[in-house]
Amino acid sequence: MAIILGAHQYGKAENRVVRITRDTPRHEIRDVNVSSALRGDFAPAHLAGDQRNVLPTDTQKNMAYAYAKTVGLETLEGYGLALARHYVDDVPPVEGARIEIEEYAWERVQVDGAGHDHTFVRKGQEIRTCSVTVEGTGEAQQTWVTGGFKDLVVLKSTGSEFADFYVDEFTTLAPTHDRVMATSLVARWRFTTTDVDWDATYAGIKATMISTFATLHSLALQQTLFEMGRAVLEAYDVVAEVRLSAPNKHHFLYDLGRFGIENDGEVFHADDRPYGLIQAAITRDDAPDAGPAWNAYTGLV
Amino acid sequence: MAIILGAHQYGKAENRVVRITRDTPRHEIRDVNVSSALRGDFAPAHLAGDQRNVLPTDTQKNMAYAYAKTVGLETLEGYGLALARHYVDDVPPVEGARIEIEEYAWERVQVDGAGHDHTFVRKGQEIRTCSVTVEGTGEAQQTWVTGGFKDLVVLKSTGSEFADFYVDEFTTLAPTHDRVMATSLVARWRFTTTDVDWDATYAGIKATMISTFATLHSLALQQTLFEMGRAVLEAYDVVAEVRLSAPNKHHFLYDLGRFGIENDGEVFHADDRPYGLIQAAITRDDAPDAGPAWNAYTGLV
Amino acid sequence: MAIILGAHQYGKAENRVVRITRDTPRHEIRDVNVSSALRGDFAPAHLAGDQRNVLPTDTQKNMAYAYAKTVGLETLEGYGLALARHYVDDVPPVEGARIEIEEYAWERVQVDGAGHDHTFVRKGQEIRTCSVTVEGTGEAQQTWVTGGFKDLVVLKSTGSEFADFYVDEFTTLAPTHDRVMATSLVARWRFTTTDVDWDATYAGIKATMISTFATLHSLALQQTLFEMGRAVLEAYDVVAEVRLSAPNKHHFLYDLGRFGIENDGEVFHADDRPYGLIQAAITRDDAPDAGPAWNAYTGLV
Amino acid sequence: MAIILGAHQYGKAENRVVRITRDTPRHEIRDVNVSSALRGDFAPAHLAGDQRNVLPTDTQKNMAYAYAKTVGLETLEGYGLALARHYVDDVPPVEGARIEIEEYAWERVQVDGAGHDHTFVRKGQEIRTCSVTVEGTGEAQQTWVTGGFKDLVVLKSTGSEFADFYVDEFTTLAPTHDRVMATSLVARWRFTTTDVDWDATYAGIKATMISTFATLHSLALQQTLFEMGRAVLEAYDVVAEVRLSAPNKHHFLYDLGRFGIENDGEVFHADDRPYGLIQAAITRDDAPDAGPAWNAYTGLV
Repeated sequence: MAIILGAHQYGKAENRVVRITRDTPRHEIRDVNVSSALRGDFAPAHLAGDQRNVLPTDTQKNMAYAYAKTVGLETLEGYGLALARHYVDDVPPVEGARIEIEEYAWERVQVDGAGHDHTFVRKGQEIRTCSVTVEGTGEAQQTWVTGGFKDLVVLKSTGSEFADFYVDEFTTLAPTHDRVMATSLVARWRFTTTDVDWDATYAGIKATMISTFATLHSLALQQTLFEMGRAVLEAYDVVAEVRLSAPNKHHFLYDLGRFGIENDGEVFHADDRPYGLIQAAITRDDAPDAGPAWNAYTGLV
Repeated sequence: MAIILGAHQYGKAENRVVRITRDTPRHEIRDVNVSSALRGDFAPAHLAGDQRNVLPTDTQKNMAYAYAKTVGLETLEGYGLALARHYVDDVPPVEGARIEIEEYAWERVQVDGAGHDHTFVRKGQEIRTCSVTVEGTGEAQQTWVTGGFKDLVVLKSTGSEFADFYVDEFTTLAPTHDRVMATSLVARWRFTTTDVDWDATYAGIKATMISTFATLHSLALQQTLFEMGRAVLEAYDVVAEVRLSAPNKHHFLYDLGRFGIENDGEVFHADDRPYGLIQAAITRDDAPDAGPAWNAYTGLV
Repeated sequence: MAIILGAHQYGKAENRVVRITRDTPRHEIRDVNVSSALRGDFAPAHLAGDQRNVLPTDTQKNMAYAYAKTVGLETLEGYGLALARHYVDDVPPVEGARIEIEEYAWERVQVDGAGHDHTFVRKGQEIRTCSVTVEGTGEAQQTWVTGGFKDLVVLKSTGSEFADFYVDEFTTLAPTHDRVMATSLVARWRFTTTDVDWDATYAGIKATMISTFATLHSLALQQTLFEMGRAVLEAYDVVAEVRLSAPNKHHFLYDLGRFGIENDGEVFHADDRPYGLIQAAITRDDAPDAGPAWNAYTGLV
Repeated sequence: MAIILGAHQYGKAENRVVRITRDTPRHEIRDVNVSSALRGDFAPAHLAGDQRNVLPTDTQKNMAYAYAKTVGLETLEGYGLALARHYVDDVPPVEGARIEIEEYAWERVQVDGAGHDHTFVRKGQEIRTCSVTVEGTGEAQQTWVTGGFKDLVVLKSTGSEFADFYVDEFTTLAPTHDRVMATSLVARWRFTTTDVDWDATYAGIKATMISTFATLHSLALQQTLFEMGRAVLEAYDVVAEVRLSAPNKHHFLYDLGRFGIENDGEVFHADDRPYGLIQAAITRDDAPDAGPAWNAYTGLV
């Protein structure tokens, strides 16, 4: 028996890059949190402390900021693709690179009914995410891109049931045909191409998911998730798979009957923990293999 | 020398009350975090463990939910006033009550261009705050109300300077006449009356602050804060004082010149810590005494 | 009526200073989060953007790191006093300075039963705090020092009651004569002198509080807090006042009787929110005036 | 092309179970955060909202608390194994179950030099973790257990180098032969058996890792991680694989030379972001297949 090095990667996590476009008085802003991970021939560093193949994470930091200028941040995915390809193409020991990006959206401030030229307020809603993975060089190079978001908190105050479930001797939950359903949605989707109108597609997928969440009469959060994924796959050929993770943010009807007060679905306690947590992938039966697309870097704890 | 009990208060913090109004198919939602603190004759509990004057914090929890139904949550301030007055008027040992409320705003989901009847997405921007303090009963009863918000993140990408400052032997900062200025603003304001259109006033004050932040050419964050406060006081007679706490969320120009890349105010590193922190009160010279208006309960650590 | 500037202060918050003492192979480490706030003649900056009196917060950052070397961090309070006095004594526009420090404790790693020379593990328990406020110069200079900690989580699994409390029509809580009592304690205490053995006093006060928490049979968290404060005041002449803020971290007995399982104080749900929050000051009847000792800088939101 | 359901699971996350053992006056406490995820025949819930196979997450909550009494929490792993087997063995639609546990350690309070019977202080250091995965029934049942911890913050103030690394045109980092090395370590290890003295093994693995971190003269964090894993595998036959994720918590030497102050490895700025992030698996060449051992539930975002 020998002790060996298994999978390994390293990089610079959470570079907080802010890019202002100021070619005209009407500025634009793109505010991202970028992480890069390199995979390749780094066994000598682990086995013997030999760094000759190790591009410092400090250099990766420099790259994240430099490419924000030279490549630009017009789209997250274009920027991520450029970074990933650079590492694989230009740094010989690197065999694969993964770029993960979170975006914090800003919106233009309104002054006297018009958008201000150079003042913005952080939107504060969901955090948009994407990942780019590139492996190999030349003809053999392969690329995977995922999009997504996290922290999108949605709630419907009716139109949701939970009944006719499996009952055992530890089941005390009462079935309900009208409840509040809320979640802080994490969604990720896998593209089959890089020929995508990234921002329009992002906006469309988000709108499709929200619309499905709103209009589907839900018998279960499970059903809602599947239909959200299906709606996205039906509308977007460029997407092969959708993954959803949905904590059921419980809103418990507060018992006011003890005080002679009726509470017909009006007053709730929003509880913190524990919470139901539902996760599902929705895909196509002919989807190409996911390869390393889902192999997270910073998401891993 | 004797050891004595000084100031003391107790209550139930962070009741997560969600109120749905569903009288018609078009629902409304109000989502708050409510804390109540009672002040009064509670020395026996401290000195001897004698609880006879102590209304349990569990009862205060029940009240927060019950009043969300009976009084309603049409306005935060109306609900807070009702709770505070209840404790002072109806529970004999209570001499003063303070209610602190945070609100998490939701917006109606758009489906096919129209607002959905019962589906909402959390807005995610600033958290609105208010406090109500009531002391005494009958003719002697006094009331203080403050409004405010926290976590409003604003940024201007030009129109901000910092120069001509005090220089000593440890000063290495270069003056600048064009920088990014950003802050995560905490604002609180003190009303002189309870005869206020609460929601409209809140929206107006927030808009006034944002507009001032945007349009003032800033020589210092200090100046911007003062002008924001002044604009509010000029526009709202019902406000006697504005308090602002503004962390200077530093955006450092990234040094790309080392790589032969020009960076003319385009690529920044958004740093976490340390940060400049500027705080100021702006008031009227004839403002009534603040009394206990600023004596925080849950804000205190 | 005129709009005027009220109280104001500014500074550099959360400088993350780590000081290694390495005069011998046996290193020592002190890891702090330092904030400095200056008060004085800064109205021109607010009113006109005139910075000539404003020592940049960037300079205050430099000072925090420089003094960690020149003054050293042998004691938090000595370091804080030096910083505060420097600003008041050496920077003419400054009339008062407040230094706030948090300390993250490390302990020496054990290897083969002995403490390692230069490897440490973060202790992770409570965060020690202190504040230093200095006002005026020369003979008129006044100094206030507070010590404290936060995030000390203590629990007793018996020896705590809550009964015979005030009951109104919204009270549904059952009295109990045996419950779990737990809190994440915030404590601050005010010194009357700077002639203190700071570290020994800190350790002694913490031990005194914990010992009182453990050994007092508690009829109320209120009573426990008062006795903790009293024990400190009785043991430490240099302390004039103790302030305690204690969230009651509720441990609810889980109802297992529904399943025919007895639960006699053995299985609890540790709930997050809401929580009871008890706050009290314990002082001496001849305590000197607190002055600005409690006027927090970074604690304020 | 058809749209199909891919991998899916659901359960109750973050049940905050506290178990007191009070058979004698000397109490014991075990404080955990338990999550359970079920895998199996739940497609009807997703595809049609048909819940008949769905054991409510509320029931899983009841189970977590009930088993804390009936099975007990003497060891995390024994409790987790009992829960996982219950779901697979007793709930027909369930084909696989995963239990994830975090433990918050408490230590007995010292009073007059002796451990108190029923008062504890939260230790606050690393959070211990474990996972149990069970699939199949009867003879075909398979079980995987992992142990681990997170948030163990360790630092060495010398004995660490970083030099002779790969240099490209964006590399500006200076090599160093003496730096501070610190990380907030996440470690997970995979057992090959359930016949383990769980608590002793946990303590031993943690001590082995810390000892290796301390005593190895480090040429790279990569090397340190590999040696930590190797030391564990050499000492513990029951472990087949170790996975480590180590953010490089950068301590930057503060430039005091500008002020004529020498700083020879004594004063550092502890930076927040970005940070190097190194991840590696260390394993045996004859390790059994990991199966679903690493398929996280709550760790996934």
